[in-house]
Amino acid sequence: MDLDRSPLALPFPAIPAIGGVTLRVARARYKEWDRCDLTYAELAEGTTVAGVFTKNVCCSSEVELGREQVLLGRARALIVNAGNSNAFTGYRGREAVEQIMAQVAHHLGCEPSEVFVSSTGVIGVPLPKDKAREGVATALAAPPCSWQEAAVTIGTTDTFPKGAVATAVVQGRTVTIAGIIKGSGMIAPDMATMLGYVFTDAAVDPAFLQQCLSASNESTFSCITVDSDTSTSDTVLAFATGKAGNAPLGSFDDPGADAFAAALHDVCRQLALLVVRDGEGAQKLIEVRVSGAVSDDSARRIGLAIANSPLVKTAIAGEDANWGRVVMAVGKAGEPADRDKLSIGFGGTWAAREGLPLVDYDEAPVAAHLKGREIDIEVDLGLGDGRATVWTCDLTHGYIAINADYRS
Amino acid sequence: MDLDRSPLALPFPAIPAIGGVTLRVARARYKEWDRCDLTYAELAEGTTVAGVFTKNVCCSSEVELGREQVLLGRARALIVNAGNSNAFTGYRGREAVEQIMAQVAHHLGCEPSEVFVSSTGVIGVPLPKDKAREGVATALAAPPCSWQEAAVTIGTTDTFPKGAVATAVVQGRTVTIAGIIKGSGMIAPDMATMLGYVFTDAAVDPAFLQQCLSASNESTFSCITVDSDTSTSDTVLAFATGKAGNAPLGSFDDPGADAFAAALHDVCRQLALLVVRDGEGAQKLIEVRVSGAVSDDSARRIGLAIANSPLVKTAIAGEDANWGRVVMAVGKAGEPADRDKLSIGFGGTWAAREGLPLVDYDEAPVAAHLKGREIDIEVDLGLGDGRATVWTCDLTHGYIAINADYRS
Repeated sequence: MDLDRSPLALPFPAIPAIGGVTLRVARARYKEWDRCDLTYAELAEGTTVAGVFTKNVCCSSEVELGREQVLLGRARALIVNAGNSNAFTGYRGREAVEQIMAQVAHHLGCEPSEVFVSSTGVIGVPLPKDKAREGVATALAAPPCSWQEAAVTIGTTDTFPKGAVATAVVQGRTVTIAGIIKGSGMIAPDMATMLGYVFTDAAVDPAFLQQCLSASNESTFSCITVDSDTSTSDTVLAFATGKAGNAPLGSFDDPGADAFAAALHDVCRQLALLVVRDGEGAQKLIEVRVSGAVSDDSARRIGLAIANSPLVKTAIAGEDANWGRVVMAVGKAGEPADRDKLSIGFGGTWAAREGLPLVDYDEAPVAAHLKGREIDIEVDLGLGDGRATVWTCDLTHGYIAINADYRS
Repeated sequence: MDLDRSPLALPFPAIPAIGGVTLRVARARYKEWDRCDLTYAELAEGTTVAGVFTKNVCCSSEVELGREQVLLGRARALIVNAGNSNAFTGYRGREAVEQIMAQVAHHLGCEPSEVFVSSTGVIGVPLPKDKAREGVATALAAPPCSWQEAAVTIGTTDTFPKGAVATAVVQGRTVTIAGIIKGSGMIAPDMATMLGYVFTDAAVDPAFLQQCLSASNESTFSCITVDSDTSTSDTVLAFATGKAGNAPLGSFDDPGADAFAAALHDVCRQLALLVVRDGEGAQKLIEVRVSGAVSDDSARRIGLAIANSPLVKTAIAGEDANWGRVVMAVGKAGEPADRDKLSIGFGGTWAAREGLPLVDYDEAPVAAHLKGREIDIEVDLGLGDGRATVWTCDLTHGYIAINADYRS
């Protein structure tokens, strides 16, 4: 099926080349697609790597292997297959991944453990080894491509390519951090959402890179949801080639480490929000800000209960200021809440304060706000200092059309 | 909006009169409805009561009061308001409930604590006291009505009235247990789902009635979900008038107690399934049977993860045997599961056994099964003896239309 471009799409940003990163794409023909579906990123010798992965216990071989590879901290290549997730395919799926790792390692003269593989698409169909072998061979020999071409190639039901870039000054040198990501459905928190890849020319020790990535993940990828469904293949990898020439960052005590971590966080946040902007069927981007909870973690859980509520999401789709559904979602979250201290607002206007609907509540500014593309829901629990922000999209006929009207 | 009758609707059963129960309905005009919206059940002196209520912490005054009243174990009346849930309305909402309790108690010459009140409808609008007062006065003077009329009157977005009946022989006497229920959206487990009322002429001590009701709730109302959203008003009450003349049942040691508990369970199960059959937008009834889990509780959580997955529910709506989505839902449930021991089937046909898609999997019988109205999903974890069955419906354009296309 052809999907219309999301009305929340953003133009692909201008991303400069990153020293030590070369991108190539090819056609492995995993599906009947008239497009490239295999992405290859060649990484300079000495590149360090960090990663966060799905917590789904039925994860793919790619995720199982990736978790082990990340512990070694070194990367020379990334292969991304689109159109087949290779999840729940047992030993046959694992053999296909190991074949790709061996093939690329042989080409580069590196260890197979330095070759990272991700796959995305249908669950339960072993990745065909012959198509993978030919596709990888083609990619290894292909001319370099742009960031945007790579971002298009890793996508599946995505309606626009997604990229982000930020810079930081580290020890007097400007380092660049660029990322691409794919994802639209089967998006839920409590994991590293979907397939995302961040590349930087900074030199960063793998343990510190992992520390920065894990911390950013907590408030970016783990704070978005499209449909509460946690994928079996979600992966975010960060690669640092070291080509900017700074002294390797090993801890927050090192000069420039704060700036680097902030820029990495910025890229992660941009990428996470791009996924929500391309949520299946999305017409509106919803930001849920929770304050006054007993802890930040409690605030996040309450925010996600709101963001995952089908009734809240359909109310926003209907431009309906149905704040009673927000009350319901707060109450079902399983977190401390006191009905009589709860306040709820939309777009800066309170509809209810401290457990009571406002007598002089003027729905006009709220109605105007809800007609827009970017919706703010504010919830104050009135209990403590815990706060969190989570993002989701509305639930529309488009989601049903994508997931029910067409056979997989 | 006018909703079409659910294709999964069942005819209203023939329910006999229950000694000690008189039903009446009236128009309180809480909404612009051309129908009765206030139900009154008068209960004989000596009636005992038990109840289970929503675990939503933002619950209504009706639920707060009902929890306290049930502890006293005695009931003389039930009032159900349809069209306004009176939830999140603070002291003003509570005053309206207390007014109704006082008005009915004065009429019957009983304690206000013996008058149970439920309300269902929009959240955040205080129940108008004047309409309630007039409606109750009309109901108190109204002629008796049928079970079906009462079942229609407690409904809101329900597309058909829901009732169930069973009998048991207790100490040589036949006792009857009848129930009515309403519910269609904002239906999720971990509580007593929606508004349901069970009446029996058996004589039952309130503590034992509570024990039987709570036990039945665990595997009936708490095992259904329409949209994962837990309402603020959910209530199931059981009333025992004692008019059958048996010696009061006080424990499972009493003759006939087992038969009574089994019949009560039967009625609860029938009522719970009727709610799913009227799930908003439902086109198919889905039964998820989980076996081989490490415990029954773990099996139930896994079943609910499947039943609440938008991607599983839309796949069933699309008659798509997309068992990979079931794998995903098992994996995200947060319960012990081993991908390589997992088996998944539809309608008696295994699609995957022990972590691998079946090589000779014949999709034809599965495709035929999925075209039907009643869909079975079977999951075997291969880990232990834990098992559970949960029920849900598919997720269709109808759900979006009901909840997004029309302003509340």
